[in-house]
Parts: sequence; C-alpha cells; structure tokens
Amino acid sequence: MAQGISPQEIEALCQTPDPTTKDFMFQQTMYRIKDPRKTIPFYTGVLGMTLLKQLHFPAMKFSLFFMGYENPAEVPRDDDARTKWAMTRKATLELTYNWGTESDDSSYHNGNSDPRGFGHIGILVPDVDVACARFEQLGVKFIKRPNDGKMKGLAFIQDPDGYWIEIFTSNVV
Amino acid sequence: MAQGISPQEIEALCQTPDPTTKDFMFQQTMYRIKDPRKTIPFYTGVLGMTLLKQLHFPAMKFSLFFMGYENPAEVPRDDDARTKWAMTRKATLELTYNWGTESDDSSYHNGNSDPRGFGHIGILVPDVDVACARFEQLGVKFIKRPNDGKMKGLAFIQDPDGYWIEIFTSNVV
Repeated sequence: MAQGISPQEIEALCQTPDPTTKDFMFQQTMYRIKDPRKTIPFYTGVLGMTLLKQLHFPAMKFSLFFMGYENPAEVPRDDDARTKWAMTRKATLELTYNWGTESDDSSYHNGNSDPRGFGHIGILVPDVDVACARFEQLGVKFIKRPNDGKMKGLAFIQDPDGYWIEIFTSNVV
Repeated sequence: MAQGISPQEIEALCQTPDPTTKDFMFQQTMYRIKDPRKTIPFYTGVLGMTLLKQLHFPAMKFSLFFMGYENPAEVPRDDDARTKWAMTRKATLELTYNWGTESDDSSYHNGNSDPRGFGHIGILVPDVDVACARFEQLGVKFIKRPNDGKMKGLAFIQDPDGYWIEIFTSNVV
C-alpha cells in the first residue's frame, strides 16, 4: 500500500537556500508547438498574453516565441533591449517552433497520457466562471469545466497542441 | 523545404489582450515527480527554491508541493493564509507526487525524447559559471555544460527525475 510521506518529513527535507541562489529567477517554461499560426492567436487573443520577444534561427530551422503577462506598453522598441527585457521577465512561456511541423502528421505529446511527465501550466484568474464562459464562446476545448468532477471551481482547457492549462482562482487549489 | 514564418506574420498574428484578461497570472508549471525524498532537497538545496506549500490528498493518494523563489521569511504561518499566499505567487513549480511511485519501476518522461512535447524550465542566474561550478560540486547531472556546443554561456542540468533545467543569464538567450 502506498503510504505517501508526512508533512513533517517534507519539512525536514527542505534545505535552506544557499546565498548564491538568492537572485535566481524561475524565468521560463518551454514546450514545443506545431504551428504558430494557431498558437500565437490562442495565447494572445484567448489568454491575454503578450509576445515579449520572437527569435528566429534560420541555420537550425527553429523559432522561439516568449509569451507572458506584461504590459504591452512596456515592451522596448529597440531590438536588443527587447531581448534583454524579455529574458529577465518572471514567468514566461517559451514556445519552440521547429519549422515545417505545421505541415507534417506528427503532433506533440502533452504529458498527460503515457508516457506521462509534464502536466500543465496554470493561469490564476479573478473569476473562473467569467473566464470560462468567455473561453466557451471562443470555442476553446475543455478537459474539465468548472463544475465537472470533484474539484469544483477550477477548469482545465487545452491549447491548439493539446497542452493542458489549469484555470483557477486563489480560493481553491 | 521548411520555411518557417516571418517576424511580420507573427506580429500580425498577435491579438490585443482582452480587458477581462488584465489580471491573469502565469502562476504554475506542473510536472510529476517520482520521489520527494530526492526532489525536495534538489529544488531547495541545489536550486534555492522555497517550499511555498504542501498539500496532501489521502483519498486520492497524491501530494502537491508548490516551490518558488520567495523570501522564506514571508511564508505565512497560518495554514489557510499560507495556501492562499502560495497560490497567488507568480512562477511557481507544482510538483505532483503520486504515492508509491518511489518504489515502482516506472519513471516519468521528460519530454525531450520521443514522444516530445514539454522541453524544460529555465532559471535565470546572475553568473552561469559560478552557478554551474557549484552544481558540479554538488554532483548535479549536466545535459550541456556552459562551454559545450554552439550556444556558449548557457547550461542544461537535470533534476532527479531527468527533467531539463536551463541555466542562463540575461546576456544570452
């Protein structure tokens, strides 16, 4: 029988942060996307993120798109300044586009069927019902609507590649 | 031949954020871990994160550990206050532990071999060489050391489950 682990044991496993890690920042979460023509409108139009920076690597045939919740008015106009600014924002989503994937039959794995691993990203919203009513209108795919299942008041939607995005508010986990 | 997509086309795909998304926050990135006895010391001791909150669900036999770069002195002592605080921090890592996985033969998929999808999380550090010298001393596994390959000055390490973590500074992508 799986017993889990006690809260006390977990606390005891926690180590005090080393002083050299004081200015570390969790800056990015990267996953691969098949077609930016579908993905960019989703993260900007549906989820309200801003394109912080795009980077293209023709020799290696891939592009990166850094997305995040930042004020669009604060995006620097100078190209180098924009790169530096984007790479120092907290909580960005780095979308990797390998050229040509949009026209092949492959699809990326969202981590929630075997072999599992990655689960989802989560967006905190002021009101789950309001957010989900709008997603519904926009034709977004739902894995779980706010009133489905045992965990009321939170939802899971899917992006164009099928990655899961939890929609929740601070009143529930 | 894969042609990619032009920067102009990408800009044209960007939609203006809807006003209802103004207070949305990219709060969490979730992946599954096999054994918190290995993972908690790694994210606290090696990477300097703080355990923001632990949640245990005995009926469903899983636990969640929210990790992040926050000042340990600011963690609320009251349990409910701590949950609410943790769930409203930006850029947290949600580690999901399904009880018993530590003693079975399975392992989680890090997304970087077929079937691919999720790639990595990225930690911005003040000095990549300093950070990596310390990781080396601590016996951390490297996918790429700062001077390996074409992309100089950035590294990829692995957590105890094999998930990739990019270590970079703001001078490089």
